[in-house]
Amino acid sequence: MSEELGIKTKKKENFNEWYLEVVQKAEIVDTRYGVKGFQIFMPLGMLAIDNIVKIFEEELQARDYKPVLFPTVIPESYLKRESKHIKGFEQEVFWITHAGKNKLEERLSLRPTSETAMYPMFALWIRSHSHLPLKIYQKGTVFRYDTKMTKPLLRGREFYWIEAHTAHKTWDDAEQQTKEDYEIFKETLDHFALPFLTLKRPDWDKFPGADATYAFDMVLPDGKLLQIGTTHNLGENFAKVFKVKYLDVKGKKKFVSQTSYGPGIMRILGAVISIHGDDKGVIFPPLIAPIQIVIIPIFTEQTKPKVLEKCGEVLGKLEEKDFRVHLDDRNQYTPGFKFNEWELKGVPLRIEIGPKDLEKRQVSFVRRDFLERFSVSEENLEQQVVETLDSINYQLSKRAIELLSVSDAKNYKEVKKALNKGGFVRIDFCMRESCSKNLKGDTGADVKGPLMEGGEKSTGNCSICNKKAKEKVYIGRSY
Amino acid sequence: MSEELGIKTKKKENFNEWYLEVVQKAEIVDTRYGVKGFQIFMPLGMLAIDNIVKIFEEELQARDYKPVLFPTVIPESYLKRESKHIKGFEQEVFWITHAGKNKLEERLSLRPTSETAMYPMFALWIRSHSHLPLKIYQKGTVFRYDTKMTKPLLRGREFYWIEAHTAHKTWDDAEQQTKEDYEIFKETLDHFALPFLTLKRPDWDKFPGADATYAFDMVLPDGKLLQIGTTHNLGENFAKVFKVKYLDVKGKKKFVSQTSYGPGIMRILGAVISIHGDDKGVIFPPLIAPIQIVIIPIFTEQTKPKVLEKCGEVLGKLEEKDFRVHLDDRNQYTPGFKFNEWELKGVPLRIEIGPKDLEKRQVSFVRRDFLERFSVSEENLEQQVVETLDSINYQLSKRAIELLSVSDAKNYKEVKKALNKGGFVRIDFCMRESCSKNLKGDTGADVKGPLMEGGEKSTGNCSICNKKAKEKVYIGRSY
Repeated sequence: MSEELGIKTKKKENFNEWYLEVVQKAEIVDTRYGVKGFQIFMPLGMLAIDNIVKIFEEELQARDYKPVLFPTVIPESYLKRESKHIKGFEQEVFWITHAGKNKLEERLSLRPTSETAMYPMFALWIRSHSHLPLKIYQKGTVFRYDTKMTKPLLRGREFYWIEAHTAHKTWDDAEQQTKEDYEIFKETLDHFALPFLTLKRPDWDKFPGADATYAFDMVLPDGKLLQIGTTHNLGENFAKVFKVKYLDVKGKKKFVSQTSYGPGIMRILGAVISIHGDDKGVIFPPLIAPIQIVIIPIFTEQTKPKVLEKCGEVLGKLEEKDFRVHLDDRNQYTPGFKFNEWELKGVPLRIEIGPKDLEKRQVSFVRRDFLERFSVSEENLEQQVVETLDSINYQLSKRAIELLSVSDAKNYKEVKKALNKGGFVRIDFCMRESCSKNLKGDTGADVKGPLMEGGEKSTGNCSICNKKAKEKVYIGRSY
Repeated sequence: MSEELGIKTKKKENFNEWYLEVVQKAEIVDTRYGVKGFQIFMPLGMLAIDNIVKIFEEELQARDYKPVLFPTVIPESYLKRESKHIKGFEQEVFWITHAGKNKLEERLSLRPTSETAMYPMFALWIRSHSHLPLKIYQKGTVFRYDTKMTKPLLRGREFYWIEAHTAHKTWDDAEQQTKEDYEIFKETLDHFALPFLTLKRPDWDKFPGADATYAFDMVLPDGKLLQIGTTHNLGENFAKVFKVKYLDVKGKKKFVSQTSYGPGIMRILGAVISIHGDDKGVIFPPLIAPIQIVIIPIFTEQTKPKVLEKCGEVLGKLEEKDFRVHLDDRNQYTPGFKFNEWELKGVPLRIEIGPKDLEKRQVSFVRRDFLERFSVSEENLEQQVVETLDSINYQLSKRAIELLSVSDAKNYKEVKKALNKGGFVRIDFCMRESCSKNLKGDTGADVKGPLMEGGEKSTGNCSICNKKAKEKVYIGRSY
């Protein structure tokens, strides 16, 4: 409801300022709520979130994941059962202690993640090998009392995600599931034109209670890394605590092996804005754009009826083909004002229709990525819309891939230089936590880990400490 | 994942037992979570919820309601600003007092409803008459520490709903909005074959802080009334507290008038199960059925390949037309077992395909409402599917309307007799709270109020106290 549309900050000059300006002026979120780290999703942000969720849900359901919804609260006794898990989260949990004027008998936590809510139920649901694999997911918000600086969509205390949980017969089946989770992530993020790397976190940075954590990391325009999702092989760790057992084909009782998987929906939206946006505002990839096409009539008093009639006709045609299309026929604004507004709000394709277009039986297209204008004959309208939207997604992808930079660094001097450039830095690494701590203290960078798929051999010495290297890993400064 | 499919209780004999058995055996919800009043939506329940929400969202968006998402927590200072409002909710609020090991500076409530979260933002968003009307909604759960007996989907401490909030120039515009909200409710519930009455609550039963409350009430099979949604004209009450003002056309500052509207999604699902279900289990109205059509192959070892081939063909045809269809080709279960399972789970239409059908180029339809079997020629398949699903919705509606019984009672003896029969009882009423309290104490029934649309004149004396009557009102025992 801001009427000042222009973005003052240049993205290249100050990415962080630019980002804050864009998410607020485009009305993606409002950050003025009275509790630190809690934000409001405005209609444009909420519609985009819903579109992102829908695409994920289709991919999940196509692979037999079933939707559920667990309570928002987890009793303290559930949360504390897995000792590593509670240790990992105890500083971050919000506690409900009272209801009305009564003190509760047992404190309830706001879920920071739902393993400990769900797995007691897994123990009731799973009895035989025929119940496996069990694959469920839920969408919604979780709560973490994060003490770092908050940032809209990227870092907050209530965040929107999908969490998916599975149980399998064997550790290897669980490991296989993490690979399927990667596939789901890859296919979904292709729709958003977002490239990423999947890295196996070193032991000291695993999810609390997991055997292995694979994280999806990308590079933002300021060169910092952003984790936008994870999948964990939990092995039998939680199954042993929550007694989740099954009878195998031979009638023997065994613990299930589990995974948990968390696509960070809110961060993905933050990444979409960060990576694709420009000095005019947001650029939505067509598949998640709340409005894919905006039609703007250009007329004088005299030509108005005919122009509006044609606009209505085009609107009808495109709506019939299930495009999300909007006709901006507001009287009180000039076409120029409207161009700015819809550019700010990221509509991928603008169609302008004026009296000259009517004569020539054509319309004008302006694509949001290059902001170039070209004429399209009415006959080819639908086909050209499809092609243009496809081309926009392709171009956004191409730009985004360029941003996902990886530089190699052979020694500590090169490491520091490369870190200052930003993006991923690939090094030979000794895999010692102490060495990673030294790196963090000295440069602020984290060791993110080797590629999930492996295949990159390390031969030399550690680029940081010069001791014998064990793995090729990716490092970088992160959010 | 229960393998015992039969419902033991007869709906007519013990509705409450029957209901509990059905929601659990059909795996709509699981009530075994470790916190009282909090339940788990299982896949069948969650998919139905998502379908209900989707239909509501379409109706809301068609009337310019925009989606948002506000934080789950509301600071104590916000919640307490409207004095009647907090008085209405203070016994029911869950309080967050700690995060990690720290005591919070200000307590946070889990939202019982979001007026006090949203309206401080309305004060920032709204400046001029051109910003009005403002119409937003959100979907999600809210939390109330209800001390009454909990019941799956119908009464719990965390419940799923949509809440919609508007701001307008005048009180009349707000009042008009409550009528639009009724229209949205009516059109949506028609899709679920659920009839209801819209009643204006008496003053003592209004939403805390509202000028007028209109409630959507229905009758469950045990004769008790269930409120499945409300819309409130809040007048300027909240606007004055939260300082939500606008400049009118003459440049004068005025308070906005507001409404809030809450379709109870979870209760609607409970009502669907209660009203449409039978002794075999759930019957989903086709529009919200997670699976609309199940195909069951009937074969011997010899005929299996041909039957399965035909089943796949029918599946493909129906999927192409966007029906939600499932082929149950599990080997380890008999057709009879499958019939029972999908009847329990409420699939509206079953298609059976056996070797005889192949010969005759037909399939067998079994509709879930009448459980009658009839043959359909392959050529007419799609059209017959559409017609059968429509007819099922029509029949469910017809049965449901019979349940929405209203009986008239002229004096207190008739009142008591009619209340014992169940359903709505229409009486002449004095509109005094004390009289309604006497009724409640004596019979357990509530005064639900006159029809929203008015038009029913009262002439005689109050059917309860025999003093002069002011209105025709509807009363009944309720959930």
